[in-house]
Amino acid sequence: MTQGGFAAHCLALVHELADASGKIALRHFRTPITVDEKSDASPVTIADRDAEAVMRELIRRTFPDHGIIGEEHGNENTGAEWVWTLDPIDGTVSFINGAPLFGTLIALLHQGKPWLGCINHPALNERWVGGASEPTRRNGELVRTRPCATLRNATLYSTGPEYLSADTQAAAFARLEKAIKRRRFGGTDCYHYAMVASGWIDIACEAGLKLHDYAAVVPVVEAAGGIVTDWSGQPLTMASDGDVIALGDPRLHNAAVKLLSG
Amino acid sequence: MTQGGFAAHCLALVHELADASGKIALRHFRTPITVDEKSDASPVTIADRDAEAVMRELIRRTFPDHGIIGEEHGNENTGAEWVWTLDPIDGTVSFINGAPLFGTLIALLHQGKPWLGCINHPALNERWVGGASEPTRRNGELVRTRPCATLRNATLYSTGPEYLSADTQAAAFARLEKAIKRRRFGGTDCYHYAMVASGWIDIACEAGLKLHDYAAVVPVVEAAGGIVTDWSGQPLTMASDGDVIALGDPRLHNAAVKLLSG
Repeated sequence: MTQGGFAAHCLALVHELADASGKIALRHFRTPITVDEKSDASPVTIADRDAEAVMRELIRRTFPDHGIIGEEHGNENTGAEWVWTLDPIDGTVSFINGAPLFGTLIALLHQGKPWLGCINHPALNERWVGGASEPTRRNGELVRTRPCATLRNATLYSTGPEYLSADTQAAAFARLEKAIKRRRFGGTDCYHYAMVASGWIDIACEAGLKLHDYAAVVPVVEAAGGIVTDWSGQPLTMASDGDVIALGDPRLHNAAVKLLSG
Repeated sequence: MTQGGFAAHCLALVHELADASGKIALRHFRTPITVDEKSDASPVTIADRDAEAVMRELIRRTFPDHGIIGEEHGNENTGAEWVWTLDPIDGTVSFINGAPLFGTLIALLHQGKPWLGCINHPALNERWVGGASEPTRRNGELVRTRPCATLRNATLYSTGPEYLSADTQAAAFARLEKAIKRRRFGGTDCYHYAMVASGWIDIACEAGLKLHDYAAVVPVVEAAGGIVTDWSGQPLTMASDGDVIALGDPRLHNAAVKLLSG
């Protein structure tokens, strides 16, 4: 397979994965559904499990030598050159409460680095795909991050203060918060990275994300013109700590990282 | 006009108002738009102003003797037997940031009491209408609140801790929060009252709402089987303080109000 052929094949598969997982999520959305608790006390349902299972099956059938890291069904072949990460339902709390902002996160990593990403919101009928040498598209239309020359003018979204550790993370976040124009917490789950990619807001910033959360947002935001790193400014890899900042305008990166790293 | 004819006329007008205001909101949504600041530092745009203006014009033309109270263009004829309240864009922060959860709130009050309400979310294509002796419908389909016999099993949504006064309100809310199963902050704007009406969650609770915020949610939630009062358990009127609790299952009301009022 040529390199371009491989990329096109991966892009086609990403859409197949999003279609299949979205169909399962919507089948269970806003229906009475049993909510189980995982060992970390986070909720999980049959929709999470089945949506991931169908994606794993499609990946295995298409690329049997690729690795897979999924939130619900664990890891396989993670030493492979190409590894997929899957979060079938990011925002399970939204999902079980009938709020439509939950999303599915799909990424393909090459040698440990995010290479292709998809943020799919089936209940909103909105899908962002970027990477694999292709610019980011929302529902097939090209999107770009917006210019924002100084932090003073920036709008930032984050999930909530309860996700920041009380000591260093809260202080670091507070420094950044003071430097920007508007901060908004909550409710948007992975949607706020898509909002950065589409140029609706300037910054998304969170702490303690898992690989299957952040891997997908890197190509989506970067192939739209932005930059995504950890809080010390380093590129995100499989080994990152999960403290993530995504900026639509790369000119903000130095100043933001300086505030976050003290 | 017969009483039934008047109710049908009002219901038809509510849909006209939601159609017209929604069209204006979507015309400006996700476009570069000038954001002004009101005297209370809250943001406002031409979309708020124009969406309210078109609704006022439709009301005046249909019911010239009715009063109107709007967020952006003030009050007229508020001593009338029938008074409309309008919040053209509830969730202006979401609106200007491209997040689709903003909504339009429309209510008709009879002798100061909410009688007909509409929660319209144009970007989500979801509309709840209830009251005027009609049960609540979402996009034309009947909805019901869900049973929830004890606070222990209840899921509650609220906008955020920053909207509670640091002294008494925060303490009252904390008592309620401790008694329930799951509390979620933020991001959903007026959508969480619609979630109560549809039986997806059990409680929505907020402090310091304005008349044009809470008047619409009373009929929508109550005509779906729930109950909406102030924090002391009194019915909401034009003179209420705007501390609001909406419960899908009226059996929870006594216990919840007891906690809120200390």
